[in-house]
Amino acid sequence: MTVNDLYMKRACVIAFTRIGCTSPNPAVGAVIVKNGSIIGEGGTGAYGCDHAEVTAIKDAMQRGHDLSGAEIYVSLEPCSHFGKTPPCTDAIINCGISKVHVPLMDPNPVVSGSGIRKLIEAGVEVNIMHNYFQPASDLIRSFKKYILRGQPFVINKCAVTLDGKIAASSGDSRWISNEYSRLFVHKLRSKVDAVIVGSNTLVKDNPMLNIRMNDFGDDIKNSLSDCCGCMTGRDNFYLAELMKSEIKDYKDPLRVLVGIPAEITIDCNFFRDDNYLIIAGEKEYERALKTNKELKAISERLKIVTGSFDSHEDSVRFTLNALKEKGVMSALLEGGGALNGSFFNAGAIDQFMYVIAPKVLGSGIAPINGAPSERMSDSLLLRDVSTVLLGDNLLFSGYKEEYNFEMM
Amino acid sequence: MTVNDLYMKRACVIAFTRIGCTSPNPAVGAVIVKNGSIIGEGGTGAYGCDHAEVTAIKDAMQRGHDLSGAEIYVSLEPCSHFGKTPPCTDAIINCGISKVHVPLMDPNPVVSGSGIRKLIEAGVEVNIMHNYFQPASDLIRSFKKYILRGQPFVINKCAVTLDGKIAASSGDSRWISNEYSRLFVHKLRSKVDAVIVGSNTLVKDNPMLNIRMNDFGDDIKNSLSDCCGCMTGRDNFYLAELMKSEIKDYKDPLRVLVGIPAEITIDCNFFRDDNYLIIAGEKEYERALKTNKELKAISERLKIVTGSFDSHEDSVRFTLNALKEKGVMSALLEGGGALNGSFFNAGAIDQFMYVIAPKVLGSGIAPINGAPSERMSDSLLLRDVSTVLLGDNLLFSGYKEEYNFEMM
Repeated sequence: MTVNDLYMKRACVIAFTRIGCTSPNPAVGAVIVKNGSIIGEGGTGAYGCDHAEVTAIKDAMQRGHDLSGAEIYVSLEPCSHFGKTPPCTDAIINCGISKVHVPLMDPNPVVSGSGIRKLIEAGVEVNIMHNYFQPASDLIRSFKKYILRGQPFVINKCAVTLDGKIAASSGDSRWISNEYSRLFVHKLRSKVDAVIVGSNTLVKDNPMLNIRMNDFGDDIKNSLSDCCGCMTGRDNFYLAELMKSEIKDYKDPLRVLVGIPAEITIDCNFFRDDNYLIIAGEKEYERALKTNKELKAISERLKIVTGSFDSHEDSVRFTLNALKEKGVMSALLEGGGALNGSFFNAGAIDQFMYVIAPKVLGSGIAPINGAPSERMSDSLLLRDVSTVLLGDNLLFSGYKEEYNFEMM
Repeated sequence: MTVNDLYMKRACVIAFTRIGCTSPNPAVGAVIVKNGSIIGEGGTGAYGCDHAEVTAIKDAMQRGHDLSGAEIYVSLEPCSHFGKTPPCTDAIINCGISKVHVPLMDPNPVVSGSGIRKLIEAGVEVNIMHNYFQPASDLIRSFKKYILRGQPFVINKCAVTLDGKIAASSGDSRWISNEYSRLFVHKLRSKVDAVIVGSNTLVKDNPMLNIRMNDFGDDIKNSLSDCCGCMTGRDNFYLAELMKSEIKDYKDPLRVLVGIPAEITIDCNFFRDDNYLIIAGEKEYERALKTNKELKAISERLKIVTGSFDSHEDSVRFTLNALKEKGVMSALLEGGGALNGSFFNAGAIDQFMYVIAPKVLGSGIAPINGAPSERMSDSLLLRDVSTVLLGDNLLFSGYKEEYNFEMM
């Protein structure tokens, strides 16, 4: 590992810590080095606040450093346009930084390449670190989807038995997976803006859908950190950090309910605070209001978006648009078979993270209850597959598209 | 790795090469060392022929060596009883070998410990190599099941999608898995005595059920060998050898058909030679004879065992007994959902080897179509789990029982 690699890795680690807190901006990390020492570093702030480069520059200044002749390592091309904040390229040029190291260009068409061009034109040396293209790309997958396709990046998370069941025939599913896997899911929730469930899960499980790091002891946390050593397949930086890192800054994701069951009770966990959104069909909502007086009573203050759609796939597209409007860049789909099936049929799942428990049920409920399939060759082939053993559970991760997918 | 480890490993490798050729004897390997060099080695011969120790002793003698003072490394406790051949302990004592290294005792109650005792009583030093207990146990799992429970060891092999389907809703299943996985299955077939399929598979696929190493190029063979480096979970010696080793000596396993479909055609691949066995219910067979004239015409020379049973589970127990009578120590269950379900319900699957392809179908046919399951906690918890990536396919292996299971 060269010195450049070390600093760029540090920038990527910082970027990772910010995922989940910056949407709809990409999470970026920056490290400023002078005379062989780090003199400043930082990550992207919350939306509307400083970007990583500016955070790092301010950090260096606050520590009393003169930045002239310093080098900056950034996990993504610095922006060159005025958004909520001024361009980072200007901040870099003005403070006298003489060299910028970046692993990839910003996929945002407003930036893409122009940040680098602007730096070069101002006499700043730019070093493209191709060897960090993969890790840096993994860090901004959701931003890339959001900025290029105007939709959130959807991760379908499931715990399945070896014979592909998420629950027994009776519906009982506690517990398929082990504690490492469950901690992993709580960490994963800290990295997404929303968690999506369907009516069945809400009624059956009354889930909290929050992040509960304190449910897990240090032994579980430390063991999960150690698991990342046994990753096979593509070496996925994001996944490794997710296992390795201690999650410090996080907020509970937005709870999203797709559909509104008539039998919903307003004192369920889902309604415990305002951090939720219901997405339902107009008719379905009207029906629920008619039969459910509790619901009717709170209908004025209900956070609900209704639409009219003819199919489950339509409702998925409506959901994704509604989430996009709310600035949701990434969402964790924690559905049962029906909801997962609708998302799958709509082609709306970008990443599959399945935890496979070493258990055999022999029968039960499938993770995806999609439309009848005709041919094996029509199945969705997953890319960039990585697997990791979390204790005796196997995490299998694969994407709909390769890390270097280009869309427009 | 000590010198002892090196020689014991060699003995285990030799034992592995003999698996599939020795039933119902255990496959054992032996290495004789004198003055720091291997002077003889060998594995168990076919049933009724020399055991490993004798093969190795004869090898050393043929090469002109004097065995007095030599040491022998054997992957299993030498036998002390007269079976088809005289006791190996006598051969060892008589040729002057002064030290025997073994990793575990013979699970055969006729031997268990008495081989070692006999050696010690004759003044031969015995070194128990506990650190080879695991690999050596994995090598004799099927023998152990056979000798202690009087039944063959059953491996259920399946190729599934990530969402747990062995075929699309239409039944189409070609191809789920990649070439490495398919080569792996052909290698696996060389290590079992029988391959079991059901009526549906026979009619739908007209399978050969043989070993076709020549279907695979050297690139595929070499790549599969390299895969064993990325095993996670328990380090499974048997699995690693299966990937690594070149399979030289092998015979096609016995083809076993459970059930007899009325629409069976006698020119199907299954009947191409006599290396088959049909196990069917009496009534089912009678029905098939009535409607199928082709079958009726060859009924005299049909290799069939019929029985009377009331349930699918009964038919599984009948099948296992019939196979045991034929000296089948290990069988590969390559069934569809129905047959796998019957075996699973009967508790008759000892090892699951599932190849998980990075594909998502969204719907389709489950690998095991068992009885409705009530509770997740009733699921079968697999032991000694190992996973290996075979290209982009994941092999997941787990056992019903731990490697050190003790039965009586």
